[in-house]
Amino acid sequence: MDYYSESLKLHERYKGKWEMNSKVPIETLEDLSLAYTPGVAQPCLEIEKDPDEVYKYTSKWNTVAIATDGSAALGLGNIGGMAAFPIMEGKAVLFKKFADIDAIPICLETQDTDEIVNVLRNIAPTFGGINLEDISAPRCFEIERKLQEQVDIPVFHDDQHGTAIVVSAGVINSSRYLGKAMSDMKIAMSGAGAAGTAIADMLMGFGVGDIVICDSKGIVSKDRTDLTGEKRRLAEVTNADGLSGSLADAMKGADVFVGVSQPGIVSQDMVRSMKKDPVIFAMSNPEPEILPDAAREAGAVIIGTGRSDFANQVNNLLAFPGVFRGALDSRAKRVTEEMKIAAAKAIADSVSDPDLSPGKIIPSIFDENVGPNVAGAVARAWEDQNI
Amino acid sequence: MDYYSESLKLHERYKGKWEMNSKVPIETLEDLSLAYTPGVAQPCLEIEKDPDEVYKYTSKWNTVAIATDGSAALGLGNIGGMAAFPIMEGKAVLFKKFADIDAIPICLETQDTDEIVNVLRNIAPTFGGINLEDISAPRCFEIERKLQEQVDIPVFHDDQHGTAIVVSAGVINSSRYLGKAMSDMKIAMSGAGAAGTAIADMLMGFGVGDIVICDSKGIVSKDRTDLTGEKRRLAEVTNADGLSGSLADAMKGADVFVGVSQPGIVSQDMVRSMKKDPVIFAMSNPEPEILPDAAREAGAVIIGTGRSDFANQVNNLLAFPGVFRGALDSRAKRVTEEMKIAAAKAIADSVSDPDLSPGKIIPSIFDENVGPNVAGAVARAWEDQNI
Repeated sequence: MDYYSESLKLHERYKGKWEMNSKVPIETLEDLSLAYTPGVAQPCLEIEKDPDEVYKYTSKWNTVAIATDGSAALGLGNIGGMAAFPIMEGKAVLFKKFADIDAIPICLETQDTDEIVNVLRNIAPTFGGINLEDISAPRCFEIERKLQEQVDIPVFHDDQHGTAIVVSAGVINSSRYLGKAMSDMKIAMSGAGAAGTAIADMLMGFGVGDIVICDSKGIVSKDRTDLTGEKRRLAEVTNADGLSGSLADAMKGADVFVGVSQPGIVSQDMVRSMKKDPVIFAMSNPEPEILPDAAREAGAVIIGTGRSDFANQVNNLLAFPGVFRGALDSRAKRVTEEMKIAAAKAIADSVSDPDLSPGKIIPSIFDENVGPNVAGAVARAWEDQNI
Repeated sequence: MDYYSESLKLHERYKGKWEMNSKVPIETLEDLSLAYTPGVAQPCLEIEKDPDEVYKYTSKWNTVAIATDGSAALGLGNIGGMAAFPIMEGKAVLFKKFADIDAIPICLETQDTDEIVNVLRNIAPTFGGINLEDISAPRCFEIERKLQEQVDIPVFHDDQHGTAIVVSAGVINSSRYLGKAMSDMKIAMSGAGAAGTAIADMLMGFGVGDIVICDSKGIVSKDRTDLTGEKRRLAEVTNADGLSGSLADAMKGADVFVGVSQPGIVSQDMVRSMKKDPVIFAMSNPEPEILPDAAREAGAVIIGTGRSDFANQVNNLLAFPGVFRGALDSRAKRVTEEMKIAAAKAIADSVSDPDLSPGKIIPSIFDENVGPNVAGAVARAWEDQNI
């Protein structure tokens, strides 16, 4: 099937993938007097007296903004906020389907970092959480951090943390299947953008042995003078052996390859240079860093990609619905590292011991247990932190 | 029934009066590939190429933001954006019920005039129109004007224009019933806030004989030195005879009284001082400027209020659903005076000649013809202007 032309037809047929529906009856004057004036004055006054009551009398408890400036939309690059509208609507229906969350697309006019923070801060009273989407690095780091400092609802850039959570689940289950401790694992990564940075941070949170990250210029190391911001920070906390060189150098002797970069940049020889039982997560999409067949032929035991037509799809859909469901249910004020770790473990644990195999390291997105498992784990993690 | 405590119970039971629903199927991998990645890239690219296509492939064509800073919420005063959330949700379900429009509450953190304009401008790509709600005068005038200058979707402060449209319909039908030409009518008004200003402007648009407006200090006239902004402007274009004094002075010899002010400030003697067949629209709510029975006893022939338990309820619900439906259907870039006039006439014409009587000058909010009549008239008015 030609997904692109069929998708265009679908979008033209539906003219928007979601609609708003009333939950209350509006048939009589009495209905109106309760849902609207004059009766509606009472919940307003209760919220004015105690702002926390907004969670009791309105939809805030279950509503998430999906906000984008369209600066890094899928593989399309910077298409602007409005052109990314179909993606935000798609995400909104996924939120509903997989977590029963009412999510609202917010397509932004501005691409200015501080302006985005300011705009979202000022509409935050409406929402129980904010899912940042498709915002380019390094702007996304600053926007997420500054916005979270200014609002008391969870802010979550899915392109970073959603991906990081699912990759972590894949690494956890690779460790489990191969019987290698995560603390013994050396990870070679290709890509140091939004997703790559978050993946590196998360894997370090899990205590992996070491991570060597490559950007387009080679291995990220303390010696390099061209690094700023997040990459500078990563250079300080990764690459314990002070390697320099290319991706090929980084992959030598690595246990796991994680790619969020460019199609086809991993050769079979590079796979062959890895440690015994190579694990490959090649998530460049739709064309991975190395195709599964080629990786397998070169000795890879576990292979995951971003694609639904191969085994072990690294799909954010395994993470974001449950993360937000759990955060909303626990009234979390932000998404902590502990909550993300709990989410990754919950995804990993959704594959039972008997099911765990090279073809099922990551659960299917249609596994109905994953969302509730993640939601429960995330909510408990927030409650346990008792912040 | 105690609407206030019953309303609180209803709001606690439903925890939000609306929900978001998916219109597209999300059951299979194929569904996902069309509604979301990879297929969704295609409508995004089409919109990037031609921004107008956003009306073809997304919900923008049918989505309205209901934005408030809660600075003038019902009769509650300045309760802030979040406390006004239940009102915005109520309005949202009315938009759905009466015009099949998907309306989204946007409760603002800020009450700064320029900041509100900036925030709404920056989220405008998401919406086909913006309904400003419950924003205090004189800030509402500036916010509406500046925002409309910066976006190409209609901006409409319902507290001003919705009320003005319905009052105008009432005056049109009073003219029709009594056989008095509007150009011969002298109007006495009490209240020069958001609604009063818009009503005066609209009635002047209909060419009424004269309007004399009173604020809390008395008749608005050129002689007064305490007037600024909109009131200064109104002083220039109303009160042709240069009257000064109190509301009692304004009402002497007037054909119509329009009140958007304070409970009980009109006496029976003031009604008796009006011209033959007095018309009273006393919309202070819930307690009108004069109660219908008292006005009738003093000789008033036509009496309207803001209340649903008396005849001729002046309810914005007669206007805003049709105004936005018509504006969205015609892809209007703003709401012009001509569109508002068309809306008022359509509401008035919804009462047929045989039905027109002192008890039915304004149609019922449950008259199912009103919305479509208004929508059609508003769309035609935009199309006729051919802007």
